Amino acid sequence: MRAGERVPSVRRCSRQQSVSIATVMQAYRLLESHGIIEARPQSGYYVRPQRWLPPPEPARSAPAPRPVRVRVSDLILQVVKAGRDPDLVRLGATLPSAEVFPIQELNRAMASVGRREPVASHSYDPPPGNRALRVQVARRAMEAGCALSPDDIITTVGATEALNLCLRAVAKPGDVIAIESPTFFGILQIIDSLGLRVCEIPTDPREGVCLDELEKRLKCCRTKACVFALNFSNPLGSCMPDEKKKRLVALLTERRIPLIEDDIYGNLTFDATRPKVAKAFDEDGWVMVCDSFTKTLAPGYRVGWVAPGRFRERVEFLKLVNTSATASLPQMAIAEFLQNGGYDHHLRKIRRFYAGQMQRMTEAVCREFPAGTKVTRPAGGMCLWIELPAGLDALAIYEQAMAAKISIAPGPIFSAKRKFLNFLRLNCGNPWSDAIETAIQKLGGIIKAMPANVSAVAHRNGD
Amino acid sequence: MRAGERVPSVRRCSRQQSVSIATVMQAYRLLESHGIIEARPQSGYYVRPQRWLPPPEPARSAPAPRPVRVRVSDLILQVVKAGRDPDLVRLGATLPSAEVFPIQELNRAMASVGRREPVASHSYDPPPGNRALRVQVARRAMEAGCALSPDDIITTVGATEALNLCLRAVAKPGDVIAIESPTFFGILQIIDSLGLRVCEIPTDPREGVCLDELEKRLKCCRTKACVFALNFSNPLGSCMPDEKKKRLVALLTERRIPLIEDDIYGNLTFDATRPKVAKAFDEDGWVMVCDSFTKTLAPGYRVGWVAPGRFRERVEFLKLVNTSATASLPQMAIAEFLQNGGYDHHLRKIRRFYAGQMQRMTEAVCREFPAGTKVTRPAGGMCLWIELPAGLDALAIYEQAMAAKISIAPGPIFSAKRKFLNFLRLNCGNPWSDAIETAIQKLGGIIKAMPANVSAVAHRNGD
Repeated sequence: MRAGERVPSVRRCSRQQSVSIATVMQAYRLLESHGIIEARPQSGYYVRPQRWLPPPEPARSAPAPRPVRVRVSDLILQVVKAGRDPDLVRLGATLPSAEVFPIQELNRAMASVGRREPVASHSYDPPPGNRALRVQVARRAMEAGCALSPDDIITTVGATEALNLCLRAVAKPGDVIAIESPTFFGILQIIDSLGLRVCEIPTDPREGVCLDELEKRLKCCRTKACVFALNFSNPLGSCMPDEKKKRLVALLTERRIPLIEDDIYGNLTFDATRPKVAKAFDEDGWVMVCDSFTKTLAPGYRVGWVAPGRFRERVEFLKLVNTSATASLPQMAIAEFLQNGGYDHHLRKIRRFYAGQMQRMTEAVCREFPAGTKVTRPAGGMCLWIELPAGLDALAIYEQAMAAKISIAPGPIFSAKRKFLNFLRLNCGNPWSDAIETAIQKLGGIIKAMPANVSAVAHRNGD
Repeated sequence: MRAGERVPSVRRCSRQQSVSIATVMQAYRLLESHGIIEARPQSGYYVRPQRWLPPPEPARSAPAPRPVRVRVSDLILQVVKAGRDPDLVRLGATLPSAEVFPIQELNRAMASVGRREPVASHSYDPPPGNRALRVQVARRAMEAGCALSPDDIITTVGATEALNLCLRAVAKPGDVIAIESPTFFGILQIIDSLGLRVCEIPTDPREGVCLDELEKRLKCCRTKACVFALNFSNPLGSCMPDEKKKRLVALLTERRIPLIEDDIYGNLTFDATRPKVAKAFDEDGWVMVCDSFTKTLAPGYRVGWVAPGRFRERVEFLKLVNTSATASLPQMAIAEFLQNGGYDHHLRKIRRFYAGQMQRMTEAVCREFPAGTKVTRPAGGMCLWIELPAGLDALAIYEQAMAAKISIAPGPIFSAKRKFLNFLRLNCGNPWSDAIETAIQKLGGIIKAMPANVSAVAHRNGD
């Protein structure tokens, strides 16, 4: 079919293909989320004009093969703080938009548990944390390929606390942690605050950490743990194929190296089913999987969890010592919401939403950014990682964008040594709007007007 | 007046003394909270029979004057976990009783902010944390003698996180921290988990840390920080006189040693006004005061705060990195509750409650425990520190008490090297009941039947 043509109605397609209405609806929604067709009110679905060719993708990163101290914390903090200005068009932080959260249902759940269990909801719920929530988390872990019992799980103050506790459980100051390159800057901050060092591993924008390179570096550098986001990593959006996850777990288990798996984007897949976690292949307890409801349900509740495998006891001790307990009511409200069965419906909704947002952002970037720009093609999550032509300085672009009231995340905050100078990350979490459209236009203008600094070329690609 | 005599009615006393009804009411309540008079339904106030002589008090502690590693974390964890059994008569943990919390008002505040600010209450509120709450905290700090601005304050996941952040901001593994002797076991756990060492300072059961001894030990041992609870410390219940606090701050400021002040019991004074914090005398920013609403309002909300003085920036960074943010709704609900002015009334209520509880517990201990037992006389807080005749083994008593379904906190968990072998702490936070009365009787029986171990005498008094 050609652009602009009307696709058969749902009913007709159902008859033609002898499949149920629901199946056709699901197929059409998938096509819509991938930007292939679009709905027109009162009229049906149409083939979308393809105004763009999929842009080229960045290459695998090539960080230096030695352990280093994190030297970027000040810059990160500066960017994070500046990004809070409410007047900005926020393309920086990967904060999900409040529009997508089931706030009323959560308020109802909160009121209901507060009334039903007045004492429990106002009392400590010491580690491992609220049991009803751990039951729900264990039940849902099946979908990610994991057989967890409620007793395997410890609730935390978001995934941030979970990552802190895991790192503290397995490493001490001076130890080396293997991380993706680029990696979420929050991980760099945590590692720095704990006095640890990092070894950055070459990472492919589609398949994640390169296992051959990882294996090589484990040989030459005593690594205490790995912190990887295997599903829709931030900022790359890479998703490691399940077979490769299995190999990764085997490789680390053999060497008795813990894998701290950050899965906060795993639920934000654009496909019908979510990818597995590495924990699914963990037979000896070396994988510590961390997750939270921050990116899917309620950032302000600060409820996350960790299944720390063989380090369970130590992590539970550190949880007790670090914050005594996670707030009771938010945990109970989320347990109630999950129990009532609204979560799957909600996840389907936000997956479509983010897929659509990311498609539009990719199109806009292709339209407005200079030739030679490369863009990732994530199959989940909420951010795009963009490589600008060599020689462009993302920090200078960041400064000018901020002056124009647009926040972006400059590439250098995603590596220990401020590499990725000509990269930036865009947040696709907010509903598409004229303001965003205009912001991308302006950003394109800023970038096109920017003089290329040839001496910066050497910094390309994290090297 | 003699025991059993009726005191003049409120109205009559008001006329006699030419003071207002309210003043007489307040005076009678104070006398009641000190156990001097008691109310009889439909009849008025009567002088209470004094069935006991105030027991002798423990002497100043005398810990060894050298830095040591904490060697008690396993024992603490064991006691803490065992103490969670819901079938116990809980005289162990200093958990306030749920009866004293304004749960309905808090539920209402929670629902109201959730409705009024649906987006804000479900979004991140990054460090320094909810502004409305910081405004209320700053306003209330006046009462503790402190001129704080909302910008001086960072909200945290309870005082536990605050203490962690302060220690991490000023010390690194191996450093020495000066603490009270005995000290709250939670502090020992935090210090141990961070790889720090402690220097225990002789502490007086009435006036707290002995400044002359502190000064001596600071000379011979490079101390990175002090962690003291100056108002109604746990377990001693000591309260340092304000003049002495001033001297303490001067002494530490001169040596550029930070004071991490744990004030979670400061509001639980039995007098009409609360004592000052050391922070009130801090002109150069060396005092980092930590507090929370855990002991006064809602343990399960996990909302605390810290005013870290000159270490503000570092603590804010560590807060961001440790837990990203404190849960928004609980902060907003507490801010709403404080704003509506219910807190002062509530504090007056629980102060009377705890004063009454502690009086009754003291009387019961005097009645049931063996001769030679010594008991602290705190003017606030919710626990009693009890010295048993030398040679008695608190850990053996603890085991037998647990077997009889009574939890207590054995002395050895309050020191780095398991000293205070013949001491125990009793929680007075639960409303007096037949179950508690019986438990104290049983406990007395267990102790009286216990053989004294003479070789344990050397461990007396933390030495």
